[in-house]
Amino acid sequence: MSSAATTTPKLTSRAGNPAASKDEIALRQHSAYRGKVQMMPKCPLRSFDDFAIWYTPGVAAASRAIAVEHERVWELTNRGNTVAIVSDGSRVLGLGNIGPEAALPVMEGKALLFKHLDGVDAVPMCRATGNPQAVISTVRALSPSFGGINLEDIATPKCFRILDALRFDLPIPIWHDDQQGTATVVLAGLLNALELVGKRLADVKIALVGIGAANMAVFRLLKSEGVDARCIIACDRAGTLHRGRADIDAAGFAAAEKWQVCQETNAERIVGGIAEALRGADVCLAFSGTGPDVISPEAVRGMAKDGIVFACANPVPEIMPSLALEAGAAIVATGRSDFSNQVNNSFVFPGVFRGVLDVRARSITNGMARVAAHALASYAKSLGISKEAILPRTDDIAAAATVAAAVGCEAQAEGVAKAKFSRDELFESALARIRSARRAHDALDLAGCFDLASS
Amino acid sequence: MSSAATTTPKLTSRAGNPAASKDEIALRQHSAYRGKVQMMPKCPLRSFDDFAIWYTPGVAAASRAIAVEHERVWELTNRGNTVAIVSDGSRVLGLGNIGPEAALPVMEGKALLFKHLDGVDAVPMCRATGNPQAVISTVRALSPSFGGINLEDIATPKCFRILDALRFDLPIPIWHDDQQGTATVVLAGLLNALELVGKRLADVKIALVGIGAANMAVFRLLKSEGVDARCIIACDRAGTLHRGRADIDAAGFAAAEKWQVCQETNAERIVGGIAEALRGADVCLAFSGTGPDVISPEAVRGMAKDGIVFACANPVPEIMPSLALEAGAAIVATGRSDFSNQVNNSFVFPGVFRGVLDVRARSITNGMARVAAHALASYAKSLGISKEAILPRTDDIAAAATVAAAVGCEAQAEGVAKAKFSRDELFESALARIRSARRAHDALDLAGCFDLASS
Repeated sequence: MSSAATTTPKLTSRAGNPAASKDEIALRQHSAYRGKVQMMPKCPLRSFDDFAIWYTPGVAAASRAIAVEHERVWELTNRGNTVAIVSDGSRVLGLGNIGPEAALPVMEGKALLFKHLDGVDAVPMCRATGNPQAVISTVRALSPSFGGINLEDIATPKCFRILDALRFDLPIPIWHDDQQGTATVVLAGLLNALELVGKRLADVKIALVGIGAANMAVFRLLKSEGVDARCIIACDRAGTLHRGRADIDAAGFAAAEKWQVCQETNAERIVGGIAEALRGADVCLAFSGTGPDVISPEAVRGMAKDGIVFACANPVPEIMPSLALEAGAAIVATGRSDFSNQVNNSFVFPGVFRGVLDVRARSITNGMARVAAHALASYAKSLGISKEAILPRTDDIAAAATVAAAVGCEAQAEGVAKAKFSRDELFESALARIRSARRAHDALDLAGCFDLASS
Repeated sequence: MSSAATTTPKLTSRAGNPAASKDEIALRQHSAYRGKVQMMPKCPLRSFDDFAIWYTPGVAAASRAIAVEHERVWELTNRGNTVAIVSDGSRVLGLGNIGPEAALPVMEGKALLFKHLDGVDAVPMCRATGNPQAVISTVRALSPSFGGINLEDIATPKCFRILDALRFDLPIPIWHDDQQGTATVVLAGLLNALELVGKRLADVKIALVGIGAANMAVFRLLKSEGVDARCIIACDRAGTLHRGRADIDAAGFAAAEKWQVCQETNAERIVGGIAEALRGADVCLAFSGTGPDVISPEAVRGMAKDGIVFACANPVPEIMPSLALEAGAAIVATGRSDFSNQVNNSFVFPGVFRGVLDVRARSITNGMARVAAHALASYAKSLGISKEAILPRTDDIAAAATVAAAVGCEAQAEGVAKAKFSRDELFESALARIRSARRAHDALDLAGCFDLASS
């Protein structure tokens, strides 16, 4: 077809602005492949007669069996390995409310990660931007097709309301990766960073720079881990949060979560900006606007000895790692793969979903998220950690399988799992699933299925 | 994992009831594979660094491009080859309202057909059973992720309302296969059957046995083809439809479509049952309850010379073909693959979807359905037709490509297509897509990806 490329595009970058040319390469590749995931058979079709088993008349036996006993849907379909990636495009990457069509490339990329990192079949589902109730209705209506739901790139405060409404109500696990995934990987990284500087989570003072979806979830998970909220100071663009923030109080329901942070944190009622929040803090967790000058070296200099700085804004950290280290930070992490200590959701969500699907958990509790964080941190320690390597590599298969096994065991312990498996069974099964997904990719690649001339 | 099968199940049937043992085989196979479709990469992932193109940071370039120009979603994502198979499980196969979970095996099987027969990536989406407005809302909300919507197994009259509401309103094509797919393949088969007995569609008297989703759509498409509704007699369980059917009139909005049939058809106001409807008819199109004794040999004997009988109830035709032929029918078709002359949606929907996706049609008009029927009929004639072979085989790749090209050309002619391609381009592209889907399946099979020990 005349619109399809017929030669493999070269990945050579042009001279000039390197960022622009990386963008050009990405655009050219997206255009050449026209999408990143596809539906494929999960069962063999060696002759057309096989449809007599997989479609009519054979399929009626499977449908009848499920009609009699709904639970058999997990045995007779792929529901148990299928996750919907739901976004309404209201907060895509750092690009804001760009709508469902523009969100689609991100959700396809996420589906690719889901398959590659944990063997899960994830379906991009970008729905028209709508109010929380509309998104809740769609997810609820479609839940019979899925084993789990991954919310993605939904604006605050809508994302809080959607997650809270569905989390303990839907019969399948729901997860907002920008909230829980981020919080879980932050906790994992923080546990190891604290260990390296010889501090305990119970004793530290923590500053949260930015209090959007990510840090709100960090705040909640830290509390669930036992951190005293009074030792936390959060700040938004207008400064530190405290009981005197009349602007947040006045925003009412739209800022209900932030107002709660004002109530619970900052026992000393410190007023000011980022520098004041960081003064004497042991830990700075930043998920705010893109850098590099959001956090000044002076502010880092004001932190306690052996300070830990997670500057996670994308694409540019709130302070560049070299500057933070120069200013005295002992350990610096960012969201980027091209610096040491990447802190990224993809360390966590694959293992979490593999685990909950394999034990058919009906939800993902805070306890399960914390167990995932501890499992990831311990696994990293078993490999050996350093100030430049507080977590394992994103594509470490054993890390994902370890998290999956831990999450699956915790789900059973908490009584939210429908299936029972031992830790070893869960670990081996997760490894097998991930390897099997990669073998399938390699089989397609080897057979030339990714050659553009044939797409 | 202890729940996963580790050996290939044998396909030997047990002694005893052969139907029961076919069911057993189907159940065993469904259970062994745990689903029939999976998500796979559409692009190569040769190192983890490739995620810098397909996910962050590269994907932002694709999202930004689409945010600026929404139409680029067709170029930069798989939307243009992705179809949602939407059901609410309210009328699954011949099994009735068995709910979304029990519908899932059918939708997965359909997705398998979509990929195998036309290279389309179809996503099973079974939503909770709901009123028409609820289904309409879900489809409308999710439409930004899809290039087309295939409705499936939805009860009457809800299915009419959903299709009618969305068909010319959504910016992407919507198709209810049980209505339009069935009507289109019936028209194709009927055109060739009439040719074989030397009659013209304009001259024949047609009896419709059953007036559910299938025959209602047949009725509409025949009218659109120019058939005089007065020469059609329909009947439901209570007898022939005519202006005197007070029961249908009294049912009001719930039977609005049937009441319209009462108004328009049966000019002679024939009162009675199936035998009366068939008396003197040239054609009997039956989509009613499962047979074999719904239509009696005596009723067929009462038809005009060289009668044509489509007895399409599943799993058992309204009259067995041998009996209908004995009773004087010249040509008999059924929905079954184990008799001559199978008349099945899968002759049509693959070509229709391939065609509309490739020209980015914004709807599927009656004109396009009729063109599909004529293209299929002509293609069959080019292979050679007989009273035992009025249509080509379901898995004839060239048949699907021929239909795709015809539908794509008609969409352009009617001004509902956004892309322009010649008939040859569309035909070649369709062939390439179908072959490519099968090559991918074979690559997975060859690499052992369908071996159960590894699933």
